[in-house]
Amino acid sequence: MEGREEDVKLGANKFSERQPLGTSAQTKDYTERPPAPLFDPGELQSWSFWRAGIAEFMATFLFLYVTLLTVMGVGRSNNKCTTVGIQGIAWAFGGMIFALVYCTAGISGGHINPAVTFGLLLARKLSLTRAIYYMVMQCLGAICGASVVKGFQKTPYEVLGGGANVVNHGYTKGDGLGAEIVGTFVLVYTVFSATDAKRNARDSHVPILAPFPIGFAVFLVHLATIPITGTGINPARSLGAAVIYNKDHAWDDQWIFWVGPFIGAALAALYHQIVIRAIPFKSRP
Amino acid sequence: MEGREEDVKLGANKFSERQPLGTSAQTKDYTERPPAPLFDPGELQSWSFWRAGIAEFMATFLFLYVTLLTVMGVGRSNNKCTTVGIQGIAWAFGGMIFALVYCTAGISGGHINPAVTFGLLLARKLSLTRAIYYMVMQCLGAICGASVVKGFQKTPYEVLGGGANVVNHGYTKGDGLGAEIVGTFVLVYTVFSATDAKRNARDSHVPILAPFPIGFAVFLVHLATIPITGTGINPARSLGAAVIYNKDHAWDDQWIFWVGPFIGAALAALYHQIVIRAIPFKSRP
Amino acid sequence: MEGREEDVKLGANKFSERQPLGTSAQTKDYTERPPAPLFDPGELQSWSFWRAGIAEFMATFLFLYVTLLTVMGVGRSNNKCTTVGIQGIAWAFGGMIFALVYCTAGISGGHINPAVTFGLLLARKLSLTRAIYYMVMQCLGAICGASVVKGFQKTPYEVLGGGANVVNHGYTKGDGLGAEIVGTFVLVYTVFSATDAKRNARDSHVPILAPFPIGFAVFLVHLATIPITGTGINPARSLGAAVIYNKDHAWDDQWIFWVGPFIGAALAALYHQIVIRAIPFKSRP
Amino acid sequence: MEGREEDVKLGANKFSERQPLGTSAQTKDYTERPPAPLFDPGELQSWSFWRAGIAEFMATFLFLYVTLLTVMGVGRSNNKCTTVGIQGIAWAFGGMIFALVYCTAGISGGHINPAVTFGLLLARKLSLTRAIYYMVMQCLGAICGASVVKGFQKTPYEVLGGGANVVNHGYTKGDGLGAEIVGTFVLVYTVFSATDAKRNARDSHVPILAPFPIGFAVFLVHLATIPITGTGINPARSLGAAVIYNKDHAWDDQWIFWVGPFIGAALAALYHQIVIRAIPFKSRP
Repeated sequence: MEGREEDVKLGANKFSERQPLGTSAQTKDYTERPPAPLFDPGELQSWSFWRAGIAEFMATFLFLYVTLLTVMGVGRSNNKCTTVGIQGIAWAFGGMIFALVYCTAGISGGHINPAVTFGLLLARKLSLTRAIYYMVMQCLGAICGASVVKGFQKTPYEVLGGGANVVNHGYTKGDGLGAEIVGTFVLVYTVFSATDAKRNARDSHVPILAPFPIGFAVFLVHLATIPITGTGINPARSLGAAVIYNKDHAWDDQWIFWVGPFIGAALAALYHQIVIRAIPFKSRP
Repeated sequence: MEGREEDVKLGANKFSERQPLGTSAQTKDYTERPPAPLFDPGELQSWSFWRAGIAEFMATFLFLYVTLLTVMGVGRSNNKCTTVGIQGIAWAFGGMIFALVYCTAGISGGHINPAVTFGLLLARKLSLTRAIYYMVMQCLGAICGASVVKGFQKTPYEVLGGGANVVNHGYTKGDGLGAEIVGTFVLVYTVFSATDAKRNARDSHVPILAPFPIGFAVFLVHLATIPITGTGINPARSLGAAVIYNKDHAWDDQWIFWVGPFIGAALAALYHQIVIRAIPFKSRP
Repeated sequence: MEGREEDVKLGANKFSERQPLGTSAQTKDYTERPPAPLFDPGELQSWSFWRAGIAEFMATFLFLYVTLLTVMGVGRSNNKCTTVGIQGIAWAFGGMIFALVYCTAGISGGHINPAVTFGLLLARKLSLTRAIYYMVMQCLGAICGASVVKGFQKTPYEVLGGGANVVNHGYTKGDGLGAEIVGTFVLVYTVFSATDAKRNARDSHVPILAPFPIGFAVFLVHLATIPITGTGINPARSLGAAVIYNKDHAWDDQWIFWVGPFIGAALAALYHQIVIRAIPFKSRP
Repeated sequence: MEGREEDVKLGANKFSERQPLGTSAQTKDYTERPPAPLFDPGELQSWSFWRAGIAEFMATFLFLYVTLLTVMGVGRSNNKCTTVGIQGIAWAFGGMIFALVYCTAGISGGHINPAVTFGLLLARKLSLTRAIYYMVMQCLGAICGASVVKGFQKTPYEVLGGGANVVNHGYTKGDGLGAEIVGTFVLVYTVFSATDAKRNARDSHVPILAPFPIGFAVFLVHLATIPITGTGINPARSLGAAVIYNKDHAWDDQWIFWVGPFIGAALAALYHQIVIRAIPFKSRP
């Protein structure tokens, strides 16, 4: 009411809200931006649209390059103590997302992940045209990044699995799918929380500070699920490694790394938009 | 006086304070918020109240899911060098608290821990109603999170201890209780320091920056006390793992992971409110 | 137009841009600063010019000191588990860049790396005079830093390779050169992204927050390429270690650690100035 | 001039300064605060003075508690891979400094280290009275923290060296002294850089963001010098461990961990005040 966030009515609601911790005084007004149109022919004529796709390509290229090279470096050594270790791999994935989202947030929004793009599309934060364009560029960037890593060392790349995502021995396909769903939920939920309109209204820190928790979420999911699937939660990353590795057992599980992240992203979008922001229940101004 | 923080009188106190380092120029006025009522019937009719509990449930669910999965991943391997290691477990606990407090700070205050809720209740930052509601939701979330981890792999979960907190061999119950008290003190003291009214007054960064030192505090306590108790400092986390693991030796020590954190949180609340803020000694305006 | 960033015209471009994520609302105007002159005789008479070189010397000295000492500490032990490990080495390099850029950003701009200076020179962010002065001071600082590390323990320093960059067994010179080019691209691209005029215009956080992603980029590149070349991406660091180590096989590869970083920095400058900022295509005001 | 920082005159200096990177536009005026008096009888009557000492005691207590407990946890295990490792110890020291400086910056300035207090005293940032009071409280806190760690496990504490700083086998006393001097220089230089008046003037972020690079500096120095001395760079930490461990070989080297840090802190104060800020050469307004 009166320009503030409207609370969903539950009977009376005539009492002012009390915030339970000093951490959430939202005094500035904010307005949810109107949903993006599905097709926005205008943006096709803007350089910033095409540039955004190039930035997504470049970011996903660098993401696969650094992360798969780290995976190969760990894999080549028999004694993991003489490498950066599995924890180092988790840092590489999470850290690259942090650095690349930081670099590209102002250019393309910094998705670098088709699941993130899909989640934001469901929340109508970008047009369908742009979403498809981003996803294509992300997949192309990932394929190029993986191919450069293979170029360094063809034989070890193939022997060591090429960083491709597969469900590891001892786990079922269902385990793998579940791990991808919840893992992507953690990531996309963090993206929504870190970038929502309320935080944006309060100050201009979002583009500078949001990349850090987003990267950290990727790091944390890798700590938990590298033993299960190697951790996808990013269909472009999984596709890129699979295309360049190109062995049957990688292709057999590939669907898990698309279906899982897309379901997880959809659940996160639902949770944030329906439960947290209660957008469908708000009266429109 | 004159709208600034009143200093506690020690005789004269007529001299202006000199700050010893350039780091503490507090020029904006601030006012301590009035204590929250024990029962606030109004908040029960607000969607934001119920939503806050859902957010606490979801956050504690994800917290247990990621952290226990990491613990299982490390436990399954005989050679810890092929895992993220004990340090990786500490990162998982601390990092998840960082990411989840960041995501939920604006929704529920981001407690994710009954000991934090208890400490803030003692400082009268939230109502008793809300505190009990939060604690119930946190415990339910933790139980659900642990059960999903068990669902991945029933046998290894039971063989490896299920991430349940117990006092390890070589330490007494008293050691375990002491470690929990001081560990929770570190955490809750950081929560109070990072969110106090003075910082809030100065600028709006608190909800965005406070989660980082809070998560780091959790990480640090885990580095120190994983060898002693596996580190609880969060009764919901300890209860959730114990309920799903459900072996006698986990239940025997369970009281330590409730009494310890609650004592630690109470001491931190006392220290911050009495020694640092000197609230009882201030003349009311 | 009208004081905002001008978009490059692609036909019409009469539609307003839609930002796909909440992370990039740039509402404040900004102006690209005019290119620095190649020679600026005035700055030679300013204390802040000479001081900047001293700060670069000191920072590069401390950089080599801490990082090579960490490398030696890991090298001396047969069991890497009793050291901070290869991941610890990566943290030392990245962390020192973070801390030192933080300390010197307001004094010299915080380059601490001839490749960064070269990239910024290409983008005309500083004069040629200043660039050469910085590079000389960086190389001198690096040599002094490495010599102090050797001073601690002469024999182990020589046996363990002195932290000098060489292309490791199993990789070709081309691999090493490629790793240096892409690695430096990641670093210098992050520098450009973190410090560009658009972010500067928005608020004053850049000098305080930019050092963190820059340091992280260095950390990440080390995770990926320590197995290949030990990771240079900083000609002063490579030169300093080579001068003090002074063995043929280090000198043989030295060119890689100059040519690679300079090519990478040039590509990053091109990418940021041409593709991202589209500076040549903008109409001058 | 005209209210801006005055540049030291080098002949003409009539040309405006050009900043080489976008990271250092200082547009707000600032004034260096006048030097603190050596004795300030007024502050003895202020509660905030006594409270500051209590906060220093408590912070140093918690610092020693968490860090030495981490050291003990790593020491107890024969296989370092089943512990948080040496890197985990470095995180404990650096991380605790980050968290504790964050918590106490607004109360006492967050020194937690007699060498930091000494450096700031030389720069006349606090009175001699306060400096001595802080150092005494820091040492008492450290002794108490170490004694609690010993209380957990008396025998292992003594067998494992109690976390006391000694010059390790293979290094000379001179190596140890040098490592302490340069290490403390890195720390105190970071403290000065992160808190100087120029940054303070620009915005109010200093008390919230400065603790992070300061803690990181401590982490980095530990990565480099744990193999040499176990890393002191904090006389209170070295004294506390020595008092509770109380063996001859710890006392024999104790002077190194007082003389080294104090020399390092003095050099950092000199470097920052003379070279970077050029305070003696400025004309007083």
